[in-house]
Amino acid sequence: MQSKHAVGQRQNDEQAIRDAVNTWLEASKKGDSNTLLSLLADDVIFITPGREPFGKEAFRGHEGEMNDMKMEANIDIKEIEVAGDWAWMRSFLEVTFTKAENNPTKHAGHILTIFQKQPDGRWVIKRDANFVEPQNTGS
Amino acid sequence: MQSKHAVGQRQNDEQAIRDAVNTWLEASKKGDSNTLLSLLADDVIFITPGREPFGKEAFRGHEGEMNDMKMEANIDIKEIEVAGDWAWMRSFLEVTFTKAENNPTKHAGHILTIFQKQPDGRWVIKRDANFVEPQNTGS
Repeated sequence: MQSKHAVGQRQNDEQAIRDAVNTWLEASKKGDSNTLLSLLADDVIFITPGREPFGKEAFRGHEGEMNDMKMEANIDIKEIEVAGDWAWMRSFLEVTFTKAENNPTKHAGHILTIFQKQPDGRWVIKRDANFVEPQNTGS
Repeated sequence: MQSKHAVGQRQNDEQAIRDAVNTWLEASKKGDSNTLLSLLADDVIFITPGREPFGKEAFRGHEGEMNDMKMEANIDIKEIEVAGDWAWMRSFLEVTFTKAENNPTKHAGHILTIFQKQPDGRWVIKRDANFVEPQNTGS
């Protein structure tokens, strides 16, 4: 059996992770790269379809493409499991990008994310297995 | 700082996970479904490209397709991190299937796996974000 203290700590950690996810989405919408990068471990690895896994530098380079793009995002957090300074989360993300006068493009997919708690108590993304891909936009 | 005991336990757990992965691959080659299923949590979820996440029953149904198929597999375990009764592993898997007189088909991809330690000490697969896909077989 786990102590009340341990259960309470885990609930706090789970809430902190949900807050980090919300901060991530808000920063994505605003194109706030500094906030996005602060939510990534320095040695983060993204695993995505059709390309080699990539880290923080490649993510930073990719961010530029988001300029003058409007983004809407909804995340469905399916589950979060906290184990000490580690946690994993399964989610489903839907994103709509709109660039200037073009038609919006929809992306969606499942994600399995590993979070790590930093010595200062912040949770950051350590690994992200991300199946988010462009969707057919048939009406 | 962590105690010697904690470090030793984590090394034992990491080795137990490596052993489970080897058992998995050997059972896959032999088509030994019972062993494969014993390495899955009852509520396992596989996340793969292009289909909805699926669980143990769907995995079991899929296994039948492996009959009379020869399989070779190599896994490159990139990292394992143990946290109490949870662990995550990042790996790269290459699989070659040969069916009767057909040409072999190669599948490969990165995998992010969550393991959970059972009360009896066994490690089982809890979540598996699996990017293994057919590869172009151009020479």
